[in-house]
Amino acid sequence: MSFNVIGKPVQRGDAAAKVTGRALYTRDMKMPGMLYAKILRAEIAHGYVKSYDISEAEKLPGVVKIVLPKDVKANPWPSAGHPYSLNPAHQDIADRQILNEKIRLFGDEIGAVVAKDELTAEKAVKLIKVAYEALPFVLDAEEAMKEGAPILHGDETNILRHTDIKHGKEELSTAFSKCDYILEQEFDVTPVQHAHLENHIAYAYVDPEDRLTIVTSTQIAHIVRRVVAHALNLPFGKVRVIQPYIGGGFGNKQDVVIEPMAAMLSLACNGRPVMVDLTREEVFYGSRTRHGIRFKFKTGVSKDGRLLAKSMVSIGNNGAYASHGHSIVAKGGTNFSRTYPAELATEWNGYTVYTNTATAGAMRGYGIPQVNFAVECHMDDLADDIGMDPIEFKQKNVMKLGFVDPVSGIEIKSCGLPECIEKGKAYIDWDNKRKEYLNQKGDKRKGVGFALFSYATAVWPFSMELAGARLTMNQDGSLQLTVGAAEIGQGSDTVFAQMAAEVMGVPFSMVNVVRGTDTDIHPYDPGAYASRQTYVAGQAVRQAAESVRDQVCARAAKKYDIDVKDVEIRDAKIYRVSAGRLLCTLEQLAMESFYEKDESSTIASEKSANVKSNALAFGVCVTEVEVDVKTGKVNILKICNIHDSGTIINPILASGQVEGGMSMSCGLALSEGLKYDPKTGQMLTDNLLDYKLPTVLDTPHFDVDFVEPYDVTGPFGNKALGEPPAVPPAAAIRNAIKHATGVRVFATPMNPQSLFEAFREAGLN
Amino acid sequence: MSFNVIGKPVQRGDAAAKVTGRALYTRDMKMPGMLYAKILRAEIAHGYVKSYDISEAEKLPGVVKIVLPKDVKANPWPSAGHPYSLNPAHQDIADRQILNEKIRLFGDEIGAVVAKDELTAEKAVKLIKVAYEALPFVLDAEEAMKEGAPILHGDETNILRHTDIKHGKEELSTAFSKCDYILEQEFDVTPVQHAHLENHIAYAYVDPEDRLTIVTSTQIAHIVRRVVAHALNLPFGKVRVIQPYIGGGFGNKQDVVIEPMAAMLSLACNGRPVMVDLTREEVFYGSRTRHGIRFKFKTGVSKDGRLLAKSMVSIGNNGAYASHGHSIVAKGGTNFSRTYPAELATEWNGYTVYTNTATAGAMRGYGIPQVNFAVECHMDDLADDIGMDPIEFKQKNVMKLGFVDPVSGIEIKSCGLPECIEKGKAYIDWDNKRKEYLNQKGDKRKGVGFALFSYATAVWPFSMELAGARLTMNQDGSLQLTVGAAEIGQGSDTVFAQMAAEVMGVPFSMVNVVRGTDTDIHPYDPGAYASRQTYVAGQAVRQAAESVRDQVCARAAKKYDIDVKDVEIRDAKIYRVSAGRLLCTLEQLAMESFYEKDESSTIASEKSANVKSNALAFGVCVTEVEVDVKTGKVNILKICNIHDSGTIINPILASGQVEGGMSMSCGLALSEGLKYDPKTGQMLTDNLLDYKLPTVLDTPHFDVDFVEPYDVTGPFGNKALGEPPAVPPAAAIRNAIKHATGVRVFATPMNPQSLFEAFREAGLN
Repeated sequence: MSFNVIGKPVQRGDAAAKVTGRALYTRDMKMPGMLYAKILRAEIAHGYVKSYDISEAEKLPGVVKIVLPKDVKANPWPSAGHPYSLNPAHQDIADRQILNEKIRLFGDEIGAVVAKDELTAEKAVKLIKVAYEALPFVLDAEEAMKEGAPILHGDETNILRHTDIKHGKEELSTAFSKCDYILEQEFDVTPVQHAHLENHIAYAYVDPEDRLTIVTSTQIAHIVRRVVAHALNLPFGKVRVIQPYIGGGFGNKQDVVIEPMAAMLSLACNGRPVMVDLTREEVFYGSRTRHGIRFKFKTGVSKDGRLLAKSMVSIGNNGAYASHGHSIVAKGGTNFSRTYPAELATEWNGYTVYTNTATAGAMRGYGIPQVNFAVECHMDDLADDIGMDPIEFKQKNVMKLGFVDPVSGIEIKSCGLPECIEKGKAYIDWDNKRKEYLNQKGDKRKGVGFALFSYATAVWPFSMELAGARLTMNQDGSLQLTVGAAEIGQGSDTVFAQMAAEVMGVPFSMVNVVRGTDTDIHPYDPGAYASRQTYVAGQAVRQAAESVRDQVCARAAKKYDIDVKDVEIRDAKIYRVSAGRLLCTLEQLAMESFYEKDESSTIASEKSANVKSNALAFGVCVTEVEVDVKTGKVNILKICNIHDSGTIINPILASGQVEGGMSMSCGLALSEGLKYDPKTGQMLTDNLLDYKLPTVLDTPHFDVDFVEPYDVTGPFGNKALGEPPAVPPAAAIRNAIKHATGVRVFATPMNPQSLFEAFREAGLN
Repeated sequence: MSFNVIGKPVQRGDAAAKVTGRALYTRDMKMPGMLYAKILRAEIAHGYVKSYDISEAEKLPGVVKIVLPKDVKANPWPSAGHPYSLNPAHQDIADRQILNEKIRLFGDEIGAVVAKDELTAEKAVKLIKVAYEALPFVLDAEEAMKEGAPILHGDETNILRHTDIKHGKEELSTAFSKCDYILEQEFDVTPVQHAHLENHIAYAYVDPEDRLTIVTSTQIAHIVRRVVAHALNLPFGKVRVIQPYIGGGFGNKQDVVIEPMAAMLSLACNGRPVMVDLTREEVFYGSRTRHGIRFKFKTGVSKDGRLLAKSMVSIGNNGAYASHGHSIVAKGGTNFSRTYPAELATEWNGYTVYTNTATAGAMRGYGIPQVNFAVECHMDDLADDIGMDPIEFKQKNVMKLGFVDPVSGIEIKSCGLPECIEKGKAYIDWDNKRKEYLNQKGDKRKGVGFALFSYATAVWPFSMELAGARLTMNQDGSLQLTVGAAEIGQGSDTVFAQMAAEVMGVPFSMVNVVRGTDTDIHPYDPGAYASRQTYVAGQAVRQAAESVRDQVCARAAKKYDIDVKDVEIRDAKIYRVSAGRLLCTLEQLAMESFYEKDESSTIASEKSANVKSNALAFGVCVTEVEVDVKTGKVNILKICNIHDSGTIINPILASGQVEGGMSMSCGLALSEGLKYDPKTGQMLTDNLLDYKLPTVLDTPHFDVDFVEPYDVTGPFGNKALGEPPAVPPAAAIRNAIKHATGVRVFATPMNPQSLFEAFREAGLN
């Protein structure tokens, strides 16, 4: 495939806006009479409010409204930013209340104060006296599954959902009986937090036509509209959601966290604008986290390294509320079923479990970083155990082109994985380094590590995929592109503009994107998640652009009395192909479409694409590390992700995505992790001092490479890229540490403390 | 025709916004770093700037930029808010510069200061010293046509354009020779000003993607885009125009008055936002006025009152710049040709002439209030002279149903005029009062007066008519309507929402209008003028709504496996017509269109309507006045406009339109008029103290009535309503004064001064 605009490293459209500070974020918006809210949060991890004393708070000048659970009339609502399903069995669990009388986590929302400014609201919150009835609480998911554990919702079980999926030619036990070697291991991936730059922030007001408007930093404006309407019992059409520029989300804003609160508080204040702006601490414990998941493997192979039977139990800690429910743990299960198909039998048991910790939800990778860490470590260890090179073992057993996913039924129509592996081996000089670093002594030891992954694009066939785009032509032939898909910093608007320019035969600079998402203006699209946008919304953009192009060509064909198939647009000029002749500029034709008195008709198209396909993205990470066995400090010497995401629409933006994802996975691997006080259930790491997000000094140079097989199901041969980069580095680093030291680590983060202990246990220091 | 939503007096959608002050106008917008400009204006009426001394002004703290004509790089541009023509012969005259070295009126723009606030800018303007070279100037149009008059543009003539149109069976002189009675008269309609509540205001800035954005109180956002792009030599697509709520325009904002200035100043200040907010005084002399027009009639009739031959010369005073050029005088000419067809011959000579007065442009009625005043007085006098009742005479000679306009070729397909006349006669008790008020003595005398009119809808076939609408369906079956047509206070958004609701079979409350005009978002439509919007944009709304309705019906037909013709939507429910059975609610079907996993596709339609028809609106005004012959004071006792505008979409809004128009015409008749100092050429009436706009105390009760023939060319049988109300009252009042006193007045305003003089001349006081 040869492209003119696609594949070019054009500068992102919003670069200047962001660099100059002229991009306006939610906090930059001001409205006359705006009020500010602060949330009263529980100081126990489980229990009930017995009573409130608001007498002191009420007296504080500037306090406009104090709202307690009894004052709120709302439906229980589901917070997940999932595409809606008409099938009740597929709908998200509606376990949220805007304010709670039952407390399920330390920091749960039990009241709110609206005041003329934030400081007053904060002071008033502190003046409210709350008496609690405390219950025992549980922080660990496996503990929470046990008989007698404190129950968070209802009175039966903390298991939100359990799935048991089996496939293969034989019973699992029979299959294991045929194996030459069986390895059982357990891995723990600790929960982490997104740490997006801009905290959750939203404000709501009732407009003069009695429509509730919510301005919010969200990845899912159209879904926020649905969920708020549901929570507050309003018709969808009476709710408008506007997303300004957004300072990151990473999945945490694929959840409806604060919008119903802002909306409810505005309604409680006669429709005045009320802003809710969470602190960093509140975002840590009061928004969403990545799921901590425990994995238990039993895997059997033949002597010659063929994978015969495998089973995995995954236990996901969902925290206090359902949020995305079982789907994150389940996505890990389908990934487990697929990536390394076992010849004889596969079984996966997944549990999603409530505990009295921060609610886990969507985060970049959506369960795959966790399962990939565990599987890629486990497979590495298996290879070691049977004396095979890990890459050779993985390459032998990994799925191949033409493979049909046993769970989704999707056939793999492009697979650049073999090429990624070859590039990765060459990059790190695998074969030599594997030998060179055997049997090291001394404090500082080096090792190389490898991990691969597969990653599904978008959510079909598990959920629906719909995306809308509108393209209108200006008098100079330039175009306005309005997409429902959300620009959340990843550069999607730039990429969509490239797609439209490609189809239209115009330079990138001729496509203006109508920025942000406004549910009144931007066509329906559920939003930024599942690495779906270039794949799904790209189809809508392509269709709209094709329609506009066809309208232009038809007008030209009529004007010059030639066959429409003989008309082509190149570089904003219209040609007669057969004669190799320039007919006119696109601008001339556009002017006529507006101003030809007898035959004017502006040119526009709006398309809604219901995409019913999927494609797997692939890739590898290779790394070389130096481990200080005395201190447990790991130094990444080299690291490279090599991705097959099909056609790369914009190499600069793609590289940026990969670097950001790699950084996230390095943090998961080496330093990040949420901790709770076992005595109170309070999160101990709710700030950027105690939570060890890698700083620029902790960050190695990231190398990035791509292979680009054309996937026929993608609008331009493209597949998922947004989330995959965050998947493989953690396992590659763990495997490199093992190569350097011979020590197998089974949990994240592999920070100096945990490695020091592991090395001590192994007698290395 | 039977309608469910159309014809109902629903409350306008923006009523609450305006009443509560929550509607945001251009002045309410604030941007960080905003600058403010003030214009340096000439203090002579004709001549040149010899030199500027800006040394004092430059020193003033807070002054950011002083711009003089030499600093401006811009193309000469046409300011008229006309639909563009690809034919250069039909294009508007590009005689504007943003800043002028040659001065053509007192107050001409000769420089500008940008400062951190308005006060500083104003002070700095006063500190600039200007030396002038003065030329003789001319204020009267007929004087300006004479040999030796000072020439404003070029060096040949002040006549911007002259047209001479003849039709009829015979030569004019032959026709006159066959007449039994010939009357020659001359009328003068003095220029007046729109006096819209919100002055001209705009600000411009360069957005971070290097697109010039202009926020402006305009009736013609899409045209502003074209004109600014033309003036500043930018591609159309690099200019974005946004119209917030607007506080009236009445045609004065159908002109590009200050937007190129704001844009140029922003570019001169590195793209910072620069606001230009004219004072009331600047709006009076520096924006646009209604044309003062002199009419000279010669008309011949038969003994029995048949109109045989007629000629009119109209001389329009266009002021200093072309603005809308000859089209306003010309529109009066076509109206003259049409309304009372002469049996034998008609000739019209029209002149549009430059003078050193404020530039005349579009104002509600677009030349018809002037010509209608003159013609309706002239015809009244003719009837008197031949001893016929004026109504009887007019009714006998006025055009009838089926008449084909000799200039436009448009055939009249609906005509409620006879019914309007009957209602008018009954309202005022015409036959009795005509007799009763004969031969009055005493100071206070009563009289009744009558005038009729015809008014063309939209601009076809003289110019092109194009309008766009987009309609999208929400999950609850409610709809978002986005039209390019401009809501300028007249209520068009409400009326379009009624139209969409009517076609869709939903209540009015289910249509949300995306307010304002944003050229990036709202489909192309040239804007609010020529009473075109309900007629032309109504077609686009109708087509878009029909398409959305058809998509809904098709989905329902498929779902229930029935013929699509058997599906109907009523009150937001979907019925099977043949079975009289409710199938489902519109909401259910809308939900499925969004969320049916395998067959989702949101429902939307965008239509661009190239309307090639026209229709004449008709009406009458009848009034009873009491005239104090001692003081010249006129007291309107009763007054009623009766309109045939075809189907009335919203009776409350329609009545409001009529009342406003009647008020405007009463002002023209009795008190308003722009005056100039003959020694300096400076406007003497540039403020609301000296300019006698009627106040509430001057305003009589207005009665309003409608007759509603269905016009097959209108989208819902509707025709022009916006401008017609401002047409007939002035002549009806003049004729009533004549009936009361026997004195014929030949000029506006008929204020106490002029009537006192006329009565004195007639020996009445």
